[in-house]
Amino acid sequence: MSTPKDLKFYDSLKLRKTRAESGLFLAEGWRVVEDGLRSGCPCEAVFVREGFFGRHEETDALLSVANTVILGDKDFMKLSDTEAPQGLIGVFQSGGLLGHEPESGCLPALFDVADPRNLGGIVRSADWFGFTELLLGESCVDPFNGKAVRSSMGAVFRTRFIICEYLEERLAALKSRYRLVVADLDGRDYREFSRDPDSIFVFSNEARGPSEAILALADDIATIPGSGRGESLSVAVAAAVMMASLA
Amino acid sequence: MSTPKDLKFYDSLKLRKTRAESGLFLAEGWRVVEDGLRSGCPCEAVFVREGFFGRHEETDALLSVANTVILGDKDFMKLSDTEAPQGLIGVFQSGGLLGHEPESGCLPALFDVADPRNLGGIVRSADWFGFTELLLGESCVDPFNGKAVRSSMGAVFRTRFIICEYLEERLAALKSRYRLVVADLDGRDYREFSRDPDSIFVFSNEARGPSEAILALADDIATIPGSGRGESLSVAVAAAVMMASLA
Repeated sequence: MSTPKDLKFYDSLKLRKTRAESGLFLAEGWRVVEDGLRSGCPCEAVFVREGFFGRHEETDALLSVANTVILGDKDFMKLSDTEAPQGLIGVFQSGGLLGHEPESGCLPALFDVADPRNLGGIVRSADWFGFTELLLGESCVDPFNGKAVRSSMGAVFRTRFIICEYLEERLAALKSRYRLVVADLDGRDYREFSRDPDSIFVFSNEARGPSEAILALADDIATIPGSGRGESLSVAVAAAVMMASLA
Repeated sequence: MSTPKDLKFYDSLKLRKTRAESGLFLAEGWRVVEDGLRSGCPCEAVFVREGFFGRHEETDALLSVANTVILGDKDFMKLSDTEAPQGLIGVFQSGGLLGHEPESGCLPALFDVADPRNLGGIVRSADWFGFTELLLGESCVDPFNGKAVRSSMGAVFRTRFIICEYLEERLAALKSRYRLVVADLDGRDYREFSRDPDSIFVFSNEARGPSEAILALADDIATIPGSGRGESLSVAVAAAVMMASLA
């Protein structure tokens, strides 16, 4: 089969700008592509490395209903952005994974989470602990970034992302419906918090922390007490520990 | 000042074999080097990139008592293994960070954790939640691997590592003193466990899980219940969530 666009275009989906304009993103690795196809997320094409078929029976069956395009090693390696590619790259539409207004009673919000592995890791943990929506500030890395997608281990396809142009303004507006709990140092023990009442839990870049504006909006501050020897937990771990406690 | 060995030798510390033979390892980044110097861990040299001094007052003061060697850009970049080097690489002795017998009442053990970021992340979380010792199986990545050291954010210098040649045999021997709790699917809810009695909590590679031999030794299985949509949590997150609950 053929694809509606040329390889150069698909390669340009490594850029956030092209992803935003086209509403498409790349998902690499058999596990992630499988989760994408199973989720029903519209898939424009799956690039398969020559020789991949026949190694994973279940994947072969799934791929048989997708628009697969077999690529030679050279072309595949060019499109891949992993060091040891598994042989599958899917092109999916992001539209159905995006939302405008939160619908759930309790959700995490991320401020300034710039590392794609951290963001993808949080998507994966959120999915595990039953959070289906994520509010992302404008300074967060794109959840459809290749590394973020891979780190999510397919959870990206089970999450609804609300990407804000101005997170602080959005949080201010959401205060009419939600209680804002900000994760930071010197707050109340996180184990005192529950999923009720309707709450947004804000997690921030661990080096820079929440902004003054976000702290000013906070109804409460939640802290994970530690031994006091390390300076901080990673934001991916802090978010997971709090989400686990709320689950 | 000068260093006792040539740059080529220090570069070879990127290999586990050379680290094991020499008892030295590289720690890159100002935060990690600072933590190393503060910890009192013997430091053979600190390589400083030309132009680094004068940017962090506190670091400059710390460095003034270390054996610093200024390197030109080209040499520094060769020794560095990060994409955006911060300008500091310390050479530390690992001997004081290694132990033979566990001394604490409750400690994590890692089986087959091959990803250095996961291992370093667990070291960081363990430090935060007050676990000072870690038992590492032979198939784990070296805790003194460059990426593991960086991901630990300096916690490597506050941890005592017990590296086993045969983890399963070691765990069998430790059963006389410790209760073995293995993290896996389909066990008891992790929140039912406490730090007492003396326990070892075993965390395994998330894709392959614990070995049959380790499961056979288990006194109990601990599970982090999830929404059932994702297949697993990352081992770094699973370990952090359980350690948080035990803290």
